Order: sequence, then C-alpha cells, then structure tokens
Amino acid sequence: MNAIDKYDARAQAVNSLVCVGLDSDLEKLPDRYRRDPSPQLAFNRDIIDATAEFAAAFKFNMAFYEAEGADGWRQLAGSIDYLRQRHPDILTICDAKRADISNTSAAYARAIFGDLGFDAVTLNPYLGRDALQPFLDHKHNACIILCRTSNPGSADIQSLAVGDRRLWQLVAKKVAAEWNTNGNCMMVVSAANPAEMAQIRAIAVDMTLLAPGIGAQGGEVEAVVRAGLNSAGRGLIINSSRSIIFAADPAAAAAELRDAINACRS
Amino acid sequence: MNAIDKYDARAQAVNSLVCVGLDSDLEKLPDRYRRDPSPQLAFNRDIIDATAEFAAAFKFNMAFYEAEGADGWRQLAGSIDYLRQRHPDILTICDAKRADISNTSAAYARAIFGDLGFDAVTLNPYLGRDALQPFLDHKHNACIILCRTSNPGSADIQSLAVGDRRLWQLVAKKVAAEWNTNGNCMMVVSAANPAEMAQIRAIAVDMTLLAPGIGAQGGEVEAVVRAGLNSAGRGLIINSSRSIIFAADPAAAAAELRDAINACRS
Repeated sequence: MNAIDKYDARAQAVNSLVCVGLDSDLEKLPDRYRRDPSPQLAFNRDIIDATAEFAAAFKFNMAFYEAEGADGWRQLAGSIDYLRQRHPDILTICDAKRADISNTSAAYARAIFGDLGFDAVTLNPYLGRDALQPFLDHKHNACIILCRTSNPGSADIQSLAVGDRRLWQLVAKKVAAEWNTNGNCMMVVSAANPAEMAQIRAIAVDMTLLAPGIGAQGGEVEAVVRAGLNSAGRGLIINSSRSIIFAADPAAAAAELRDAINACRS
Repeated sequence: MNAIDKYDARAQAVNSLVCVGLDSDLEKLPDRYRRDPSPQLAFNRDIIDATAEFAAAFKFNMAFYEAEGADGWRQLAGSIDYLRQRHPDILTICDAKRADISNTSAAYARAIFGDLGFDAVTLNPYLGRDALQPFLDHKHNACIILCRTSNPGSADIQSLAVGDRRLWQLVAKKVAAEWNTNGNCMMVVSAANPAEMAQIRAIAVDMTLLAPGIGAQGGEVEAVVRAGLNSAGRGLIINSSRSIIFAADPAAAAAELRDAINACRS
C-alpha cells in the first residue's frame, strides 16, 4: 500500500476528498495561541482535533514553519507526530515544492520522508526527472509534481507554447507517461481553471490530482469536482487552507467543504 | 549598495570569483567532526576560516541542514552568523530553489532574508514572476533564478522548444527583460555547457551569473570563464562545493580554483 492507496482508503472511509492545509502563519494565529510557547503546534493540534473527522489529508506548508527558524521546524515535527499518532490513516503532505540536483534532492527526501515522516511531498518539475528521482525512488511515498498552479502569473512559464501544446500539458504528459514508473506520482492542478483541469484529467486518466485554490484563492467547487474526478469517481484531493483554519468554526468549514464536494459526486 | 554590488566589491577586493559551496552533508563529514555536538557548524567554521581569503561568496545548500531537522536549522543559522561576523563583506547565498504562491513566498523570504539574514537566494521560475515578487521586492537582496541547471536531466523541461527558442532561453529573456526591474536578479547557469552560457550572456549582457557544476559536476574552468564573463570582465560567480570542502586541503583547493579562474581573465 503506497501513499496514494492510503489516501484512497481514507477518502472512502470518511467519504471525503478534503485536504486541510495547515498554513499556520504565526502572524495570522488568534491571540490566544500567540501567548503559547509553541503557538503553531498548539494551533495545529486544535485544528487537527476539530477537522480530522472531515479530512482525508492534511497538507503542511513548509514556508510558515521555516519562517520561525529552528523553533518552527520543531513545531512542524511536533505537529506531524501529533497527527500521525492520533490519525495514522490520514495522508500527510509536505507542501515544499522542492527540486534540486540528485545528491541534494536525496537530502531533501531524507528530511521530508525520513526525519519528518511525511507520506507525500510537492515537487517542482523545472529541473527534470533525474532531479526528482531520489523522491520517486521512495516507492511507498507519493510525489506530487507541480503541473498547473493557481497564482495569477502562472501563465508566464507554464502557458508557453511548445509545439501545439502548452508547457503545462507537456509536463502532465511527461509525468503521466514517463515519470510515474513506480505508480507514486500525483500532480498539482489549480482549482482556478476547471477547463484546464479537464484537459489534464484526459492526459492523466487515472492519476490523483491535488487541487489547491478552493476558498481563499477563488476556485469553485462544483466545476472542479466535475472536471477533476476520474472515471471511478475519485482521484482528487481538494485542498483548502486559510478558509478552514482561520474560519470562526474550522470544523464547520471543513464539513461544509466536504458536503459541497460530495453534493457534486452523486 | 545591493547584494550584487556587495559581490562585485568583494570580488574586486580579493581578486576572486570563487564561491565556496557549504554542502555540509553530515554523512560526508570527516569523523573528527561527527563527534562534535554541532558537527555541521564546527565543520563550516573550519571551512570558512580556511577558505574565506579566497572567496567572494559562500553558498549554503539548505537540503543538508534540513536533513538534520531543527538541529540542522540551528547549525545553519549559527554558521551564517559566524560568517557574517568575521567576514561581513562576503556575499552569502541561500541555495534553496524556492518558489510558491505569493503569501507563501513572502514567508520563505522572511525566513531566508529576515530570520537567517542571507544576502541572496536561489529561486525556481516555473510558477512565474508573481510567485517570485515577494523575494524581488527585497531590493537590497539578490534573487538568483534558475535558468539552465547542470543535472543530466535538465533538458527534460528546460530544453523544450518554444517557437524557435529553448525554454531556458525564454527564461533568460524574461528574467533579463521583465523580472529584473529592481536590478537585483541574477541567474543560475550551469558550467557544464559553455556554449549555452555564451548564449545566455548574449541575452543578459550585464547580469551576474551563478555557475555551479565546476569540479565534482565536471565543468571546465577556462571555457566557463570565457563564455560567462561580461564585457567588464566580471558578472560571474563560480561555485565549487564538494571539490573544495571535502578536499584534503580546502584552502589549497579554493586557492587553486581562484588561480585557475584568474589565469583565464587576464
């Protein structure tokens, strides 16, 4: 059972495609946490307790822990330990968008899959396959490769025309046809453009797609679900970060997203 | 004076274009350091002491510190502090290859330029300009954007044909013509292919290029220097990591590289 199977099993068990994004920016935490000696860890514990029953995955955004230095790293490790102990069947994603030459990528893989113990990591394709191979070689972990991102300027490079295709289409094709030999690849596909997600689904028929951009980034649930589900009615991880974790009632926000997604799946 | 000016001043003062890459992989450190409670910090201090007089820049490879968790991060911060206190005029580069959506990139910029206090950072262009903007907005720091990397599989994406050009040529053009409005961009250009470096020099006439791939990665000094220098005889940062830091005599290795480079500049 690799990390993708783990996600599928959890998604089925709790009937949810929701990923809760722990973008636990210290500056945005409610005041009551900021007085805690481990504010990010205390906040994450509460969010995990409140939302786990609605979540098939949790995604940790590395930047917000690195911004707090060694102490942030310690709180990240504590948060992932807490999640793993209480909910070992929930997929854990390290949103790090890494890629480097081989011995360096091997060190990142050691940090993320080994030391921190994540199930999955987000990766950047610009350096090519061999830069990702040290991650891909971890057959039981999942490699979630950036294909089409949700930021306004994503077209600068991703939409350049390569022959009669866009670069993001070429990346989708390479990942699906060439880089996924261990069956442990997924792709990041923005929820902001369902028409493009449908094209990527046509290229990567069975793969699982991680869709950020719901909520704070403006994606609409129904269009994303219709465009992104595979023929088995799954293969989609829908992430929401700030719209859940900074909601007045995070549990209600997570339940609402789960229900909105499921309403489009039936 | 921004970080690029800082580099130029130091390069002129010590007559060197050498960057020493602190890829201080714990597993590769000599035994005598591995018994130290802070092995990476102890090793880095010795390498800095031995090689600083020959160095215009030091580059810290984040992966090898992250691989040791919070303790690695602490040793990274200690190493950069040590370097800054003893040699405040040497350019410090964080080799992190980051890029993410805007609020996330802002958190990375806070970590790297703020908390750690680096002068410069390496960045990945795949997400487009707006993803790099939070870094670019730090006008006194330098943003070193990946253009052409030195790994064998770099052609997978970077060499795709976009019209009558390669993707890496388009990236070079975008960085030089559009993304460098604050005058604080550099580019990463592999030392492994001097003909391509010459093409990038023709696109980015005055920009400073960071060339990894000398030494362990096989690049040849003379061809790189001839292809990469700008018309003022500078604009080039030549990095060597393992070939210097794991040499029997790191000072001699750094001096030898400086001299080999300078022999091609006269």
